[in-house]
Amino acid sequence: MAAEWLRRLRRGGPAEQPGGTQGPGPGPPPAALRYRRPKFLRGGTEESPRDRRVVRGTGPERPLPWGTGYAEVINAEKSEFNEDQAACCQITVRRREPGLEEDEEWLILCSTQFLTGYYWALFDGHGGPEAAIIASNYLHYCIKQKLEEVVGGITEARPPMHLSGRCVCDSDPQFVEEKHIHAQDLVVGALENAFQECDEVIGQEMEATNQMGGCTALAALYLQGKLYVANAGDSRAILVLKDNIVPMSCEFTPETERQRIQHLAFLFPKLLGGEFTRFEFPRRLKGDDVGQKVLYRDYFMEGWGYKTVEKADLKYPLVHGHGKQARLLGTLAVSRGLGDHQLKVIDTNIEVKPFLSCIPKVNVFDFALHDIKEDDVLIMATDGLWDVLCNKEVAHMVRSFLEENRTDPHRFSKLAKCLVCRARGKKRGHQWMLDDSHEASYDDISVFVIPLHNRDED
Amino acid sequence: MAAEWLRRLRRGGPAEQPGGTQGPGPGPPPAALRYRRPKFLRGGTEESPRDRRVVRGTGPERPLPWGTGYAEVINAEKSEFNEDQAACCQITVRRREPGLEEDEEWLILCSTQFLTGYYWALFDGHGGPEAAIIASNYLHYCIKQKLEEVVGGITEARPPMHLSGRCVCDSDPQFVEEKHIHAQDLVVGALENAFQECDEVIGQEMEATNQMGGCTALAALYLQGKLYVANAGDSRAILVLKDNIVPMSCEFTPETERQRIQHLAFLFPKLLGGEFTRFEFPRRLKGDDVGQKVLYRDYFMEGWGYKTVEKADLKYPLVHGHGKQARLLGTLAVSRGLGDHQLKVIDTNIEVKPFLSCIPKVNVFDFALHDIKEDDVLIMATDGLWDVLCNKEVAHMVRSFLEENRTDPHRFSKLAKCLVCRARGKKRGHQWMLDDSHEASYDDISVFVIPLHNRDED
Repeated sequence: MAAEWLRRLRRGGPAEQPGGTQGPGPGPPPAALRYRRPKFLRGGTEESPRDRRVVRGTGPERPLPWGTGYAEVINAEKSEFNEDQAACCQITVRRREPGLEEDEEWLILCSTQFLTGYYWALFDGHGGPEAAIIASNYLHYCIKQKLEEVVGGITEARPPMHLSGRCVCDSDPQFVEEKHIHAQDLVVGALENAFQECDEVIGQEMEATNQMGGCTALAALYLQGKLYVANAGDSRAILVLKDNIVPMSCEFTPETERQRIQHLAFLFPKLLGGEFTRFEFPRRLKGDDVGQKVLYRDYFMEGWGYKTVEKADLKYPLVHGHGKQARLLGTLAVSRGLGDHQLKVIDTNIEVKPFLSCIPKVNVFDFALHDIKEDDVLIMATDGLWDVLCNKEVAHMVRSFLEENRTDPHRFSKLAKCLVCRARGKKRGHQWMLDDSHEASYDDISVFVIPLHNRDED
Repeated sequence: MAAEWLRRLRRGGPAEQPGGTQGPGPGPPPAALRYRRPKFLRGGTEESPRDRRVVRGTGPERPLPWGTGYAEVINAEKSEFNEDQAACCQITVRRREPGLEEDEEWLILCSTQFLTGYYWALFDGHGGPEAAIIASNYLHYCIKQKLEEVVGGITEARPPMHLSGRCVCDSDPQFVEEKHIHAQDLVVGALENAFQECDEVIGQEMEATNQMGGCTALAALYLQGKLYVANAGDSRAILVLKDNIVPMSCEFTPETERQRIQHLAFLFPKLLGGEFTRFEFPRRLKGDDVGQKVLYRDYFMEGWGYKTVEKADLKYPLVHGHGKQARLLGTLAVSRGLGDHQLKVIDTNIEVKPFLSCIPKVNVFDFALHDIKEDDVLIMATDGLWDVLCNKEVAHMVRSFLEENRTDPHRFSKLAKCLVCRARGKKRGHQWMLDDSHEASYDDISVFVIPLHNRDED
């Protein structure tokens, strides 16, 4: 299905044109997408000098929805390009069956059949910036498409069993009620399906243009009074409210998803190609460990046990290392994300993709249940920020900055820059250091500051 | 390994004899275990007349550890036997390698090398009482064995990388620390492994004696100042404290484990034998639904979407029904438990076991972090109780009963009976009714009331 949809997009069919791609009909295979910074940042594709790590942000001339602030900085020679990408836009959801052109005409007469959503997303690329660029071009389009497929159900408080509204059994509404299915569940389902669709699109684009790599994806969608945060990777979103910090995402890393990953290896040992062991040990084992009883964990364990080490246990572990050093198959630091369809463990034929999930976990925040104050914000940031700042430190900075800059109309943009600056630190000799003399973040850092109080309602 | 251990047990080797089985050497295949009520209840195997549903409990002449109260009642003609079983005992953990007899002699000289734990467990059988009887005979033995295998690590605050204590690398303790491995994690691992071992033993016993069935398992273990509650099934344990209710287990049902079960069916569609669909719909679909877009969920979804119904979607759903009616493959109401190795979907060759997990989720409560009051108790009960009483109702009953019966030395036994009586209700005509005129529990009901204040310390 994705293939057909992508072809139609590329051909310039009735669907809309994301990313500005336009073509009169079938033609030569598409060129690789050009490297660039997010569209809402001024300037073109150029990078600021790496050794200065200039923090770039949105200016007053191009305001983002809700007065959102954004800032970013490139890494300290970790990779050639800033592999983070960002996207932000309105999402207009029409009531139609995809591809039915007659519906389009009908819509001109029925403009109340539109829903407007707001969308922000961060993508942290690895193995090159390509997957993150494609995701920043397409994910909102996939979300729009998936929402449009179910919009008839979303606009009801209780979605109908059949999208047509037709009742095949008298008891249909009763079953939907018993399952506690609400409009919100359709939005969550649409986001889950959109991530999967976007992953397919990336796979096809990357194969067609012979590119490699993958990215994490963290997307926030505001629709009908609710904020949905969908996460696949190790970026993070938190709500900083007056008296409370509300985590809106959880990180997916080889450590947090160890049991899922080990279980897959247990079910399909061939995926390890005889090169890896699925067991977790506190450290990589050596020849001297053979015959000893050492601490280990298997896929079904949250606790630890001892096992007698055999030669096969000396293989490289499927999940290895600790914290930021943890790696899946010695390769990737995340266990969910988009892309990586071609990724193999170096010097082997072992594919990483089966262990990677493209499905996000979606958290929902219902504004109707909370009294949102003027300085309440959603902070979204890539791991470059969270590696050196904890939720509490960020919340403290947010609250005191906004209190001290109450009248500044560009306070959210300035706060975003301020957060990036703090995590980047200052250069002392060859090192980037935090104010407290700890090592600063060497990674790409991207931050959205989204004010919640003046949100547009439709 | 389980096979060898079981053979040694049956032969009367150096391992201890659980369940009173004793034999001088190899002999004829073992007879099926005799149906009986828990050993600590007076009387033999007889059932009370079903239509009266007499509540049985522990009397003063055979006190259980800590003054624990226990009561039970048989179902209202749901099955011939009371399929609930209970167990309660001390568990003595020795420091030894299993099978090394020289260690036994050494132990006589080193009596400080014992750890004493306390154990309570409930098993809710289905398809016959056999699996529950075997589990009530063996699980504590499996736990003892698994704890003895790692006791050298448990008695240290931080378990050694190697059980021998030998350090192969200087950095071994550092790696164990980085992974946050504590003695408690070894107990959790031992419980996880013990459930798996017990499941294997049940499989072998049931095959050898040509019996069928399975059971849920809820086990509480007190060891070294901590309470561990391991659960595989839909029984439940809660702590009723003075100002707080602490859930100590979560239920595993086809509904709560839908995604795990559907994912397995996605990976191995052959397990469904062409007879079932892995998709979830709000109700069983009919011919009239074909071609319509209906609400559905796939394995990766927490939200809902719409799919166009195909003929294959009319098959029976892998997980079907709602609440107490929910069934796995139309067969079982639980998704975790012990036994069921032979269970097939009726009139097919489709095995249920691959979808059942025998692994418990273990919750830990550390007494050192809480000021335990005199009336604080752990309530363990099979679903017969929880189907008609919620945590709050139970907590309310517990608190008011204990307050009103402060000086009664048998208050915990009486409270257990009182809880069972409440859930069983009273017979009005042909029906068993609660005080509030709702339908009472028709199921077997078993309850432990475990007082925490006077716990034995070792």
